[in-house]
Amino acid sequence: MKLASFAVETPTGRQRRVGVKVDDGLVDVTSAYAARLAAEGVAAADELARATAPPEMVAFLERGDRALEAAREAREYALSTDEHHHADGGRLVFALDEVDLLSPVPRPTSLRDCMVFEEHVQNSLGEEIPDVWYERPIYYKGNPGSVVGPGDEVAWPAYSETVDYELEVAAVVGKEGRDIPVEAADEYIVGYTVFDDFSARDTQMAEMQGRLGPAKGKDFANALGPYLTTADAIDIGEAGMTATVDGEVWSEGTPGHMEHSFADIVAYISQSETLYPGDVIGSGTVGEGCGLELGQFPEFGDTVALTVEGIGTLENRIAPR
Amino acid sequence: MKLASFAVETPTGRQRRVGVKVDDGLVDVTSAYAARLAAEGVAAADELARATAPPEMVAFLERGDRALEAAREAREYALSTDEHHHADGGRLVFALDEVDLLSPVPRPTSLRDCMVFEEHVQNSLGEEIPDVWYERPIYYKGNPGSVVGPGDEVAWPAYSETVDYELEVAAVVGKEGRDIPVEAADEYIVGYTVFDDFSARDTQMAEMQGRLGPAKGKDFANALGPYLTTADAIDIGEAGMTATVDGEVWSEGTPGHMEHSFADIVAYISQSETLYPGDVIGSGTVGEGCGLELGQFPEFGDTVALTVEGIGTLENRIAPR
Repeated sequence: MKLASFAVETPTGRQRRVGVKVDDGLVDVTSAYAARLAAEGVAAADELARATAPPEMVAFLERGDRALEAAREAREYALSTDEHHHADGGRLVFALDEVDLLSPVPRPTSLRDCMVFEEHVQNSLGEEIPDVWYERPIYYKGNPGSVVGPGDEVAWPAYSETVDYELEVAAVVGKEGRDIPVEAADEYIVGYTVFDDFSARDTQMAEMQGRLGPAKGKDFANALGPYLTTADAIDIGEAGMTATVDGEVWSEGTPGHMEHSFADIVAYISQSETLYPGDVIGSGTVGEGCGLELGQFPEFGDTVALTVEGIGTLENRIAPR
Repeated sequence: MKLASFAVETPTGRQRRVGVKVDDGLVDVTSAYAARLAAEGVAAADELARATAPPEMVAFLERGDRALEAAREAREYALSTDEHHHADGGRLVFALDEVDLLSPVPRPTSLRDCMVFEEHVQNSLGEEIPDVWYERPIYYKGNPGSVVGPGDEVAWPAYSETVDYELEVAAVVGKEGRDIPVEAADEYIVGYTVFDDFSARDTQMAEMQGRLGPAKGKDFANALGPYLTTADAIDIGEAGMTATVDGEVWSEGTPGHMEHSFADIVAYISQSETLYPGDVIGSGTVGEGCGLELGQFPEFGDTVALTVEGIGTLENRIAPR
């Protein structure tokens, strides 16, 4: 199942919704689930649908398996009925060109980003990989308040001249947990999305001399999307990954060997620390998955498109100067 | 004005409230403001009070100056009336020993931590301070989901053997802003609190070899409290600061010269990045404000008490092993 967040314009203002992808559109989960409950004669169907499968992704994920089951039932109902509107007037299905597709998790509870691909670390570090990198997943915490969605233009910071992308996948946490054993860790991952960890390389290189961070080199734009593919619907290790810049292929690969798997990462982070639904954890950049490694950088005005098979294409234009 | 978050046990469960400190207790801002409005004959006083000065700190800060003004009026009204309960049954004033004092910002919107005190950096780094440290405020992002409050016991992570504290002040953002000019930056700081950036030094030293972070060395416990003193009520640069371990003074100083002032820091962070009410920004450790610099560390079972004049004492015991 591919979950989405989207916005629709209404006469009473812009509304955010949670959707499930179908062939040519999105089923509005809350409305379609309410319609299904109402068709069964359930009392207070609208309220029950909003409580079970709320139209905001983090709240939706907090409902856990009941929300996911509701999304499945909503999709099935919407595809099987001739009903276009629920009794309260809500549309059951929207065509993709009728909505503004947002990042599936527009405001993650937190954002962490690892670096578990040896080739990327080897290519970026310019020195021998330290032992600690093999011993534990190394990560920094990003800015969950700077998420941009598919199709959004990225305004590059005035303080930077060097544009770069990073081709990553991100796991989305679907269940609260602490001190999670590695054997159980996959249960805490509800699914995956594409992550473009845009990097102002000149700023990042400068600030990292201060031995903390990164911060200003990364925190202005974290692109996540276009969909959140549930873990049961994707074999993330085998998913083909591509980055194009203005249509030209720059990076290609698969996650393949992660020195630390997402299960290892979840177990490690959760030691003495609670993970929450809506936490997003990036894999780090796959080998040759950024301009820094390739010795060339995108230019202002270029469009960067990252594709992960089974999730979709996350496209963002860097605003011209 | 000293603002607080506190919890009270009620027959319908534990409730969180926002308070203003008075001599021997806390005025419940939402209830006392409702009582004040009701006394004036204002319609829907409860709803208006909850909308203006909600009983949750981040929501309260999001209301900006209107909430602060309501808190002042609530305090004045509670101190001037014989009324003990508002019409809805809410208490106007609680004694300190009747409540559980929480961190004033129990779940910050974000947590950043700088290092702007030259002596601390000199003492901790073990090598020459890089030029970039003088050029811009260097910071990392902490875990806003791991906040502990005054009086809370800190369960030290099983993976660490080296206990350390860090004596810091933190600015709390009270107004949303982006690309904030340094001249206007102070307006975005609603006030200050004490910050004990507990550090698992052995873990931190190990993971920082990986050149990102810190993460597991810091993210298990961020103590903030006991009060949020509004900026008009404190001269933060002159505030005396003390750290004691089991009653013995280990660190003493004042913020004094910050290489980058809080105004500089707010202006810097806000470049191409939005600051939100409830964002917390630590100063970094004052010179000799941690065990690492002093060559001695607290032990399991010790109580660390950090005092900042004009704010209060933030006391936390490290759980025995």
